[in-house]
Amino acid sequence: MGKRIVPDIVVARLPLYLQTLKQLQREGEYTTSSNGLGKRIDISAAQIRKDLSHFGEFGKQGTGYAISYLIEQLEEILNVNQVWDMALVGVGFLGHAIANFRGFNSHGFQVKLIFDNNPTVIGSNIAGFIVQDSNKMEEIIQEHNVKVAMITVDSDHAQEVADRLVKSGVKAILNYAPVTIKVPEGVQIQYIDPIIELQHMTYYLD
Amino acid sequence: MGKRIVPDIVVARLPLYLQTLKQLQREGEYTTSSNGLGKRIDISAAQIRKDLSHFGEFGKQGTGYAISYLIEQLEEILNVNQVWDMALVGVGFLGHAIANFRGFNSHGFQVKLIFDNNPTVIGSNIAGFIVQDSNKMEEIIQEHNVKVAMITVDSDHAQEVADRLVKSGVKAILNYAPVTIKVPEGVQIQYIDPIIELQHMTYYLD
Repeated sequence: MGKRIVPDIVVARLPLYLQTLKQLQREGEYTTSSNGLGKRIDISAAQIRKDLSHFGEFGKQGTGYAISYLIEQLEEILNVNQVWDMALVGVGFLGHAIANFRGFNSHGFQVKLIFDNNPTVIGSNIAGFIVQDSNKMEEIIQEHNVKVAMITVDSDHAQEVADRLVKSGVKAILNYAPVTIKVPEGVQIQYIDPIIELQHMTYYLD
Repeated sequence: MGKRIVPDIVVARLPLYLQTLKQLQREGEYTTSSNGLGKRIDISAAQIRKDLSHFGEFGKQGTGYAISYLIEQLEEILNVNQVWDMALVGVGFLGHAIANFRGFNSHGFQVKLIFDNNPTVIGSNIAGFIVQDSNKMEEIIQEHNVKVAMITVDSDHAQEVADRLVKSGVKAILNYAPVTIKVPEGVQIQYIDPIIELQHMTYYLD
């Protein structure tokens, strides 16, 4: 696949293509074109063709892409032709919302473990999961061989939790705490931060 | 300011610089350098200098940036030297979490209006706000002159809600529904989607 030579900015767009293709499929479409796909997400057809060309030939001149085939291929490229178990650390309001989010499963992910350090929360049932003591995080995560985690603790504890997740063998962390986190080489980190997105938009407002 | 000529990819990085500067300030720092800032967020010093140079001269050769001054300047550039009232549409688990999030206020935003279409939820108090009937969204948003909104309804209703927000005068929409939304020219849209971020990371996992 030549993974190492694909720019990360290209990789970052693939999930958006996948999501949009699934949307088209739900709307009853069977085929689409770089043009049709691009219009949905404000990305040029040329960009989409160029991005996809890193991974192979997926469409035919004139007939475009078979949506179900391209979905399959993108799922394979993104390694979501399997379901990744996830650990969730921190069950405040946001942790609750994430634990109860039903959208993960059809996209390659499922919450499997939930941790918190609050004794009044540990042992309680959230969305069908028993909240476990975050002091036992390392051994439980290793035991379940979980490689993906989400952090929804407060900013002051996010780095410490991330360090412990990495020690437990986690290779991909989605951080909801509004703070930058350091992870070693070979561990992926991404951020969910509404303030970053909001400030990006207010730049353009009068 | 020459706003029109700054690439959006540069604008998108400014909130991250601002967040990191605030973090450094909380840690007791008074000055930093492009290098020091860059190390925190894995962006090169050259890139940071180039990004900031679109807006002026903020640092001095040898002494770097005065953090509080650069924060002030970035807040002004991003238009968050004021507080933007926000409307929140949809109060499921995620809407609850957002309504209860205390982090907006110190970054230029506050939830002001909450809407839902569920009669059992309308009139209830969430985080100090009375949930209002989304059928009255247009007039209430106009009355309060709200320009920023967050959508946390399900995918099937996100576009319809966005259309109504735009009609109400909203100019910036943060969409949490995992679906692409069309907005007219002059209206900003950004997305919060954990699945996109997770799939971006699993690309790199074995």
